[in-house]
Amino acid sequence: MNILENTSMLETTLNNIEPLDEASIEAARHRLDRQAKPQGSLGKMEDICAQLAGIYRSKFFDTGKKVVIAFGADHGVYEEGVAPDPQEITKLQFPNFANGTCGVGTIAKFVGADVVAVDVGINTDEKMEGVLDYKIRKCTSNMAKGPAMTREEAVRCLEIGIEMSETYIQKGYTVVGIGEMGICNTTPSTAIISVIGGCDPKEITGIGAGLKKERLKHKVDVIRSAIELNKPNPKDGIDILAKVGGFEIGAMAGVILGCSANKTPVVIDGFISYAAALLAYTINPTSRDYMIGSHLSAEPGTQKALEIIKLSPVLNMDMRLGEGSGAALAFNIIEACNFTYKNMVTYDEIDMLGR
Amino acid sequence: MNILENTSMLETTLNNIEPLDEASIEAARHRLDRQAKPQGSLGKMEDICAQLAGIYRSKFFDTGKKVVIAFGADHGVYEEGVAPDPQEITKLQFPNFANGTCGVGTIAKFVGADVVAVDVGINTDEKMEGVLDYKIRKCTSNMAKGPAMTREEAVRCLEIGIEMSETYIQKGYTVVGIGEMGICNTTPSTAIISVIGGCDPKEITGIGAGLKKERLKHKVDVIRSAIELNKPNPKDGIDILAKVGGFEIGAMAGVILGCSANKTPVVIDGFISYAAALLAYTINPTSRDYMIGSHLSAEPGTQKALEIIKLSPVLNMDMRLGEGSGAALAFNIIEACNFTYKNMVTYDEIDMLGR
Repeated sequence: MNILENTSMLETTLNNIEPLDEASIEAARHRLDRQAKPQGSLGKMEDICAQLAGIYRSKFFDTGKKVVIAFGADHGVYEEGVAPDPQEITKLQFPNFANGTCGVGTIAKFVGADVVAVDVGINTDEKMEGVLDYKIRKCTSNMAKGPAMTREEAVRCLEIGIEMSETYIQKGYTVVGIGEMGICNTTPSTAIISVIGGCDPKEITGIGAGLKKERLKHKVDVIRSAIELNKPNPKDGIDILAKVGGFEIGAMAGVILGCSANKTPVVIDGFISYAAALLAYTINPTSRDYMIGSHLSAEPGTQKALEIIKLSPVLNMDMRLGEGSGAALAFNIIEACNFTYKNMVTYDEIDMLGR
Repeated sequence: MNILENTSMLETTLNNIEPLDEASIEAARHRLDRQAKPQGSLGKMEDICAQLAGIYRSKFFDTGKKVVIAFGADHGVYEEGVAPDPQEITKLQFPNFANGTCGVGTIAKFVGADVVAVDVGINTDEKMEGVLDYKIRKCTSNMAKGPAMTREEAVRCLEIGIEMSETYIQKGYTVVGIGEMGICNTTPSTAIISVIGGCDPKEITGIGAGLKKERLKHKVDVIRSAIELNKPNPKDGIDILAKVGGFEIGAMAGVILGCSANKTPVVIDGFISYAAALLAYTINPTSRDYMIGSHLSAEPGTQKALEIIKLSPVLNMDMRLGEGSGAALAFNIIEACNFTYKNMVTYDEIDMLGR
């Protein structure tokens, strides 16, 4: 747990991220092409299996034990009036991630997955039952007035994510999803996607969890001025995270990098996690090969973000809850892909049976 | 099984199709709105539950026992050279629907659903093991030279579908999916969608199971001339089915009508089943309310077909296998929706617990 002492953890992780194993992908494609169907006709079901083979470095693999690692944090930019809900919702709702009564908890129960809730910056001094305490600070600073966090804090939330991913991979989890809770975090997420996507926030800003339409222009103005004030370097993911990001977004990016370094697939959730995915991709583009898209968020920045990382989610549910709910729902599809890949008959088997 | 004697079966069924129950939908929406999340933030997960409540006429319901009813048939238009595979594939592959080794069988096993395989017109005299024999005729006539079938045959395949749906609903199945197998059946399906959608076949014709791109123009020409020759009435679903349809497509439309009359949700598969859904919708528009979309087919006519019936599938997998594979995969999502609806905590429960 010596995150502060281990100054080279991020560097070590980045050095360990390798491309997928082409030989395993080829072996999987060979099997998929020999299954009793027109080649490629199962679409993404096949692509996901080939990708998993490349990630696990093996023609066959086990996708049984799954976890959503969810991070909670609050945002200084909340004081600009960019969200309809009270900030206290973060601290009130986040313990429900741990006790399984919230959206991601219920869906995770259905798919037989676990949920881990990690506080990286919730605005409270109270201890939350069942929540792991990795609090960096009670809230980011208001990005409309200066950087959201220091560069050291940005590295720290990435490293918390790396550490969490490694802990759960060592516990035997073979598929990791990311989730989050943080009132108003579509605001920093939209800022991140604007910077990396090189577009005006106006093009991609949405209502988040339910902002009134007439407040949308104000949200755009806040994001635009935060970017103008802080001037994040679009090539430097850590700089972007520090200037217009959030602790939970950085920690999610850290999980992506940690999973990539540890050859484990990481399932991306909705809009906030697209921002985390873009940060991870900007820091290390190879991390993209370890990502699996779960669902198309209802936020307007979705297409922009997904185009850059070339992620094509399997679900189209108009969901905008966050939490990791879409990632958990997609766990089942991934399991269905692997089951079909393992069990669907091949032409070779048909020949052997003399049919 | 006295389909021929029961001349009014179709009429009786159509008379039994009622609108959804608004009171049950409202009761479901009330619960959904009180669950611990921003209202509507679970998107289609919520819409599906409200629809199911309206279908079952009950705030709570059981979606446990699921079946894919799949129909196999061959097509006279095959002789025009519109498919890359030999016609024999239909009779060789269809028995695998019954023994569970094909795509839909494997996915159904994963989701705990059953598959029923019904021959309504496969081009063989052989008895196929495990396949129910409702053969109308060994093959439709070539629609490029005249109507694919008589109006009586069209009614008959609708009634076979109705009978099959009623049989399995009586056996206790609460969710029905539709599937099919029939070499070259994207050709009649594209014809049906062109007629009902009022568009030129060129706009929506695709490669089906893998037609070479250079043969696409020929496929368009065949579909276009079959429509010009037979002049199906776009307002008369039975006429369209008879002139440019297929036995399995008509039987699938029959299942949709039968499920609608028996207040049971019917899960639509891919492109061929969109054509069946359009036929059912043209025959009785209220049937649309009983349909649940499973996946976006990779065929180009997809958007056109889905716009008309306002169906918005939950999966985006680039699948083009057919069989009912997408419907089976979506069964799991439907179950996840119901589980979340039943188990996710409401604000009332939180208040009662004093949290």
